[in-house]
Amino acid sequence: MNAVYEECIQACLECMEACNHCFDACLQETDVHMMTECIRLDRECADICAFTAKAIQANSPFAEDICNLCAEVCEACSNECRKHNHDHCQKCAEACLKCAEICRNMSA
Amino acid sequence: MNAVYEECIQACLECMEACNHCFDACLQETDVHMMTECIRLDRECADICAFTAKAIQANSPFAEDICNLCAEVCEACSNECRKHNHDHCQKCAEACLKCAEICRNMSA
Amino acid sequence: MNAVYEECIQACLECMEACNHCFDACLQETDVHMMTECIRLDRECADICAFTAKAIQANSPFAEDICNLCAEVCEACSNECRKHNHDHCQKCAEACLKCAEICRNMSA
Amino acid sequence: MNAVYEECIQACLECMEACNHCFDACLQETDVHMMTECIRLDRECADICAFTAKAIQANSPFAEDICNLCAEVCEACSNECRKHNHDHCQKCAEACLKCAEICRNMSA
Repeated sequence: MNAVYEECIQACLECMEACNHCFDACLQETDVHMMTECIRLDRECADICAFTAKAIQANSPFAEDICNLCAEVCEACSNECRKHNHDHCQKCAEACLKCAEICRNMSA
Repeated sequence: MNAVYEECIQACLECMEACNHCFDACLQETDVHMMTECIRLDRECADICAFTAKAIQANSPFAEDICNLCAEVCEACSNECRKHNHDHCQKCAEACLKCAEICRNMSA
Repeated sequence: MNAVYEECIQACLECMEACNHCFDACLQETDVHMMTECIRLDRECADICAFTAKAIQANSPFAEDICNLCAEVCEACSNECRKHNHDHCQKCAEACLKCAEICRNMSA
Repeated sequence: MNAVYEECIQACLECMEACNHCFDACLQETDVHMMTECIRLDRECADICAFTAKAIQANSPFAEDICNLCAEVCEACSNECRKHNHDHCQKCAEACLKCAEICRNMSA
């Protein structure tokens, strides 16, 4: 597999991990009522990242369109996470932003 | 496909819908701090139900083991949801309980 | 949930079932070397349909974009399946076409 | 996250990649009629590995049971893949075997 594809898979899998961890951590925060959009977007973003990694790995003819959708979800999740000071949110915002950029390049 | 399989697929898909709807509705409740276990289990249960339906539909050699796991998750989700008076939780508890029973029969 | 959303979820779940069944049946055909694109697209289409149903059920802010992608995959799967005379392929082509049309309306 | 969990997530993600790549490669082989069980198990194994990684990442109360199921699927996929001389099958057999062992330890 070429290096661009491998980089995109790696970014998706790291973003998936950051989002799933953030989902769990948000549910345990005392200010959970502030975290509801984060929880919603963490689930959505983790799931589309897993889906995108699978599509690239399995040589899907739709990989570029899926990357485009993934970038959009990652951007929304990054924007929400960066509003919150929790360490898991800041790390998630960063992983989402990186994944969004790499997915945008894949789909360009 | 035989009737037992079809009934199990149908129960999984109805449980998936109830759990995904309950997940969204819980995130919008004013007492969301009371709903965190429900939110967590709704996601988990919706996802294993989708996975189980796919396995039966695709004639997986692991369908029975997957049904067994699905029953376990459905029971936990049903037990959590029934603690809450919200209409979406009560409906979800019922869908989970029905799916758990049918999956137990499939895996027996 | 409104009737348009319910109709789209239902079309996705029926298409998922047709594709997963067709995937399994294609793998058992004696002319399996003719069915490889069908097998590939059946998996892809079943998975995006499950993903789309979940997104609508959970009130995803990306439901329309996901429906748009789902329509594209369904159309490709329908076009491939209709080339083959197997009963499971013809039924799958029909379910995919219906789902594509309903998803296009959702995303319009 | 502790080192045992991280190792298990990593093994699942590597197995997922090997299986998805093997799925695609098998569909392109001239002896595809020999590869049908491999194709079926590659899909199944890739999907349960993604599911298992998500469960551990999101701190699922069912992580151990899911690992147990994952180990079972990985073993079956490894046993099938090792029968075939294709490079992608041999690599997949190895990734599945490693993942099975690590998942067995997680669920013990």
